[in-house]
Amino acid sequence: MILVLAGGVGAAKFLEGLVQVVPPDQIVAVVNTGDDFVLHGLMITPDLDIVTCTLADLIDREQGWGLAGDTTACLEWLGKLGGPTWFTLGDRDLALHIRRSALLREGWTLSQVADSFRQALGVAVRIVPMSDDPAPTHIVTDAGEIHFEHYFVQRRAQDRVHGVRLHAAGPAQPAPGLLDLIAQAERILIAPSNPVVSIGPILALPGVEAALHASAAPIVAVSPIVGGAAIKGPAAPLMRAMGYEVSALGIATIYAELADTLVIDQQDHDLAAPIRALGLQVVVTDTIMRGPVEKARLAACTLKDTGNRN
Amino acid sequence: MILVLAGGVGAAKFLEGLVQVVPPDQIVAVVNTGDDFVLHGLMITPDLDIVTCTLADLIDREQGWGLAGDTTACLEWLGKLGGPTWFTLGDRDLALHIRRSALLREGWTLSQVADSFRQALGVAVRIVPMSDDPAPTHIVTDAGEIHFEHYFVQRRAQDRVHGVRLHAAGPAQPAPGLLDLIAQAERILIAPSNPVVSIGPILALPGVEAALHASAAPIVAVSPIVGGAAIKGPAAPLMRAMGYEVSALGIATIYAELADTLVIDQQDHDLAAPIRALGLQVVVTDTIMRGPVEKARLAACTLKDTGNRN
Repeated sequence: MILVLAGGVGAAKFLEGLVQVVPPDQIVAVVNTGDDFVLHGLMITPDLDIVTCTLADLIDREQGWGLAGDTTACLEWLGKLGGPTWFTLGDRDLALHIRRSALLREGWTLSQVADSFRQALGVAVRIVPMSDDPAPTHIVTDAGEIHFEHYFVQRRAQDRVHGVRLHAAGPAQPAPGLLDLIAQAERILIAPSNPVVSIGPILALPGVEAALHASAAPIVAVSPIVGGAAIKGPAAPLMRAMGYEVSALGIATIYAELADTLVIDQQDHDLAAPIRALGLQVVVTDTIMRGPVEKARLAACTLKDTGNRN
Repeated sequence: MILVLAGGVGAAKFLEGLVQVVPPDQIVAVVNTGDDFVLHGLMITPDLDIVTCTLADLIDREQGWGLAGDTTACLEWLGKLGGPTWFTLGDRDLALHIRRSALLREGWTLSQVADSFRQALGVAVRIVPMSDDPAPTHIVTDAGEIHFEHYFVQRRAQDRVHGVRLHAAGPAQPAPGLLDLIAQAERILIAPSNPVVSIGPILALPGVEAALHASAAPIVAVSPIVGGAAIKGPAAPLMRAMGYEVSALGIATIYAELADTLVIDQQDHDLAAPIRALGLQVVVTDTIMRGPVEKARLAACTLKDTGNRN
């Protein structure tokens, strides 16, 4: 079984490659829930939905989020009735949030909801939220401490960032079985996701880092930073605020103690030596996931035997 | 000020007539909430929505409920995710339910939500839910005691009815100010709505019947039964189950102690004498509300001075 620590769009694309080279039912995606938030009284789980709907081939591929061909009749009317409209919610998309919220109120756990949804949508990859507890990621900005989605979507990542507060609602436990999954995994992959607000919240769960250190499986991370910039999303300002260089070397610094291997883009080949100096194996390849071929090739790179420090 | 006790479709059409002959801001509609129920974790208030959206000229006129031109993308996806689909919810329609549920969870009362919605949709008639408390109407059937919407919509009114339980969630109070509104009204109209499950729940609220009896205003009811059948909805089986004849005379029996005048259809002119014998004034007219002209004429009939027993 291959375990993938996953955020949103980058992880979803990476997983689309992985299912081409590994039987999907042998893959478990552990998905960040730090972006989850309540809007219109509905529990919205952006990364879980992006991963699930991308693997179900339902995603709007231009945006990377939302459902292909979705309409926004409901959102327009929510606006007419005085509701917030800064977070785009399609009509089909809303069904996920309505149904999820209803099931959670009925006593289902988020893990159960996520599993039910991926099965309903025909996804063979097992999808596990990192935690069944609320674990919101807050961004400390000049405008105050605000939820990640307020920072990123509502305020368009324009506030100066001073820091990040993970699990801002209080202690969160790993989802049931997550530590066992880490222990059982034959290979652990860290998707090309934001290390601060996508992978960071997973690693911050009690027992997760220890379980990763204890695992004998190779741990291979893919750098989400190419040529000194993030492919998508606010990794740059957030890495900078946390004191990391915005580069594949910065990513290496973050994962040096945890991973065995870092996959970096060919544009960053000159960083291979300094990254190796941090004790990581390095694979240099094309990491830009333009289409199915590139996705599969990148996934295959993360499966190569590059040695394991343990 | 004219107060109208209102159910759903019949009341909404009647109010469309009334606003043609009375300034809308001098009309208060007190709307049944016995049909309200929770589905998909959302609070759905059928009669409030029918009245509000009809007066806003947004209603689907063929159905009498739902919004004109609405789509059902969300509902189809709720079905894909295992949610119930027996109650049709359009995408725009859902915005009302989502926003209402969110505001109620934020601590708004149903009265506040109803007032906010009618203002947002440009309705000048004041719309007051009968109660801010849950007051579900249950139907006692061969299949057990079920909520009215389960009986009427999900099971298509096919179960044998043994009785009706109003306010089945426990004691409900009249909405704030409702008793004062009754005391202040210059005329009180009972819309052509189901007497058992639309008007009945309003009358059953503590203090409402007493306030109506104490009022010096003429009380004029319009029979929803024409030629021994309901224009729409399950009035017939419900009246029968409650021991009433399904006729304008049956309606007269129900309202005899409460109303001064009953407006009946010309088809039922032979019932005028027995209705008068019950102590009610009778107005015989065309009560079928085919279009704006008929609606206005019916409304005008309810404003004629036919005397007041008080």
